[in-house]
Amino acid sequence: MTLAEYLAAGQARVEAELDRLCPPETEQPSTIFRAMRYSLFAGGKRIRPILCMEAARTIHDDVPGIETVASTLEMIHTYSLIHDDLPSLDNDDYRRGKLTNHRVFGEAMAILAGDALLTLAFQTLGSLPGAKPDAQVRLLAELSSAAGAHQGMIGGQVADIEGEKQPPTRDLLEYIHRAKTGALLRASLRMGAIWAAASDAQLAALTAYGEHVGLAFQIVDDILDVEESSAALGKTAGKDAHQGKITFPAVYGLDVSRQMAQAESESARAALSPFGGRAERLREIAGMIVSRKS
Amino acid sequence: MTLAEYLAAGQARVEAELDRLCPPETEQPSTIFRAMRYSLFAGGKRIRPILCMEAARTIHDDVPGIETVASTLEMIHTYSLIHDDLPSLDNDDYRRGKLTNHRVFGEAMAILAGDALLTLAFQTLGSLPGAKPDAQVRLLAELSSAAGAHQGMIGGQVADIEGEKQPPTRDLLEYIHRAKTGALLRASLRMGAIWAAASDAQLAALTAYGEHVGLAFQIVDDILDVEESSAALGKTAGKDAHQGKITFPAVYGLDVSRQMAQAESESARAALSPFGGRAERLREIAGMIVSRKS
Repeated sequence: MTLAEYLAAGQARVEAELDRLCPPETEQPSTIFRAMRYSLFAGGKRIRPILCMEAARTIHDDVPGIETVASTLEMIHTYSLIHDDLPSLDNDDYRRGKLTNHRVFGEAMAILAGDALLTLAFQTLGSLPGAKPDAQVRLLAELSSAAGAHQGMIGGQVADIEGEKQPPTRDLLEYIHRAKTGALLRASLRMGAIWAAASDAQLAALTAYGEHVGLAFQIVDDILDVEESSAALGKTAGKDAHQGKITFPAVYGLDVSRQMAQAESESARAALSPFGGRAERLREIAGMIVSRKS
Repeated sequence: MTLAEYLAAGQARVEAELDRLCPPETEQPSTIFRAMRYSLFAGGKRIRPILCMEAARTIHDDVPGIETVASTLEMIHTYSLIHDDLPSLDNDDYRRGKLTNHRVFGEAMAILAGDALLTLAFQTLGSLPGAKPDAQVRLLAELSSAAGAHQGMIGGQVADIEGEKQPPTRDLLEYIHRAKTGALLRASLRMGAIWAAASDAQLAALTAYGEHVGLAFQIVDDILDVEESSAALGKTAGKDAHQGKITFPAVYGLDVSRQMAQAESESARAALSPFGGRAERLREIAGMIVSRKS
């Protein structure tokens, strides 16, 4: 299977699971389920759940219920996009080439759809197939801290917003990206490892991979925002600079940023050495993250 | 101890615990913690956590960690108030006599503070003192379904918003109130019972109490909105009728609504008979909920 085929199969598996987990539009009140599903099925790359499933597969060939665990990461990611796009935050009209949630359903419903996806992620962790309460509690701790305000996604988003009014510094840049996107990508690997009953050493290796890949991913995101046209990116490009956002190209310049992304990708691959051939897909993904064009 | 003294002691206990659980304003990014704390400590009655702690005390005299469990209910309740008050939802400037969160911190921060409190509630469940993973997973299932879109708080809020455009029916009224406020009040009792290792029969009795008390609470809320002045209520009163909200007075009239609240309060007390004298405080609370003036 080529990497493209592998990713497509992973996306299909995640989407089937999200479809099973999110109540259908025939349930009442139907508007909220339509709004949740609109953004859940708006063509995401599913990189977080794919990393989660692959982390588990690096430990064991078959880990029952892993696609359910993985789907909670996509619910959190999707809620964060819906809320980030709101008029009072990034005020984006388009996301992945489609109208943003609030442009279709209105602001009130977009706020509630985000809240509902955030809540559904935790509800899903509370009813995982196969009773392993110890592991469920560990997953709960991972996902909630990665999504939270302290060192997690919300904290990164706040620092990002406030950073628009401040001179860009390396410390602030590092905090923003470690918290805003890094924490959830790191959790993707850790949650897969935990549900697959990884040893402490295996968990540490996958955590290191996740941290490097997360940083590479964010650097490339910042570079793409500078380089790409709106059409290819499916969102309003060049917007970071316009808003005075603290980004890698703004702090280090484009060339150094590219070198940094490459170096992080190589460190990610190096962290996988304990797994030998079992981690080949994770190595490919680390490479793909740096070479991606959107 | 009088009921008033008991409630004040419960509020103080909950507030001390919320203060311990929510990161201080000295942490970075400080704005989010200021915004979270502004609404957490805006003078709530703490009825949900008090019910949770009292449900546990009905089972055992001392239940370690119960105030932590109880605090998660107040985090969820507070997040829901912050988001409900937003301009695109109820557009309220005042809550409990103070400016609403978005009026102080702006819409973006209010949305994120709500998100952060919702997330912190689940993070708190993931790190309860005393390792009882089975019970933690049961609490997770209770809190997330009570807060969720399907039969929980978000679903009730959506139905409430959409109900403004529809003729008021008894079925819709019942769904809205069972979901919007009933589910979380019911969960308050159930979570206390679960953390106190209640028997199935004890859990069922406290659940029934919670359902009746939740309905009584909401009917009285609707009545107060019609009767009370803005000054006493600390929010804009008479707003329900103005917005065409589906309320008990709108469907049944004021007199019948008062009788219904009284009947629910009596049913709540009756559900406590298996507990004898141990449930005296819960009986008092059921009475207080009907006689309250704000």
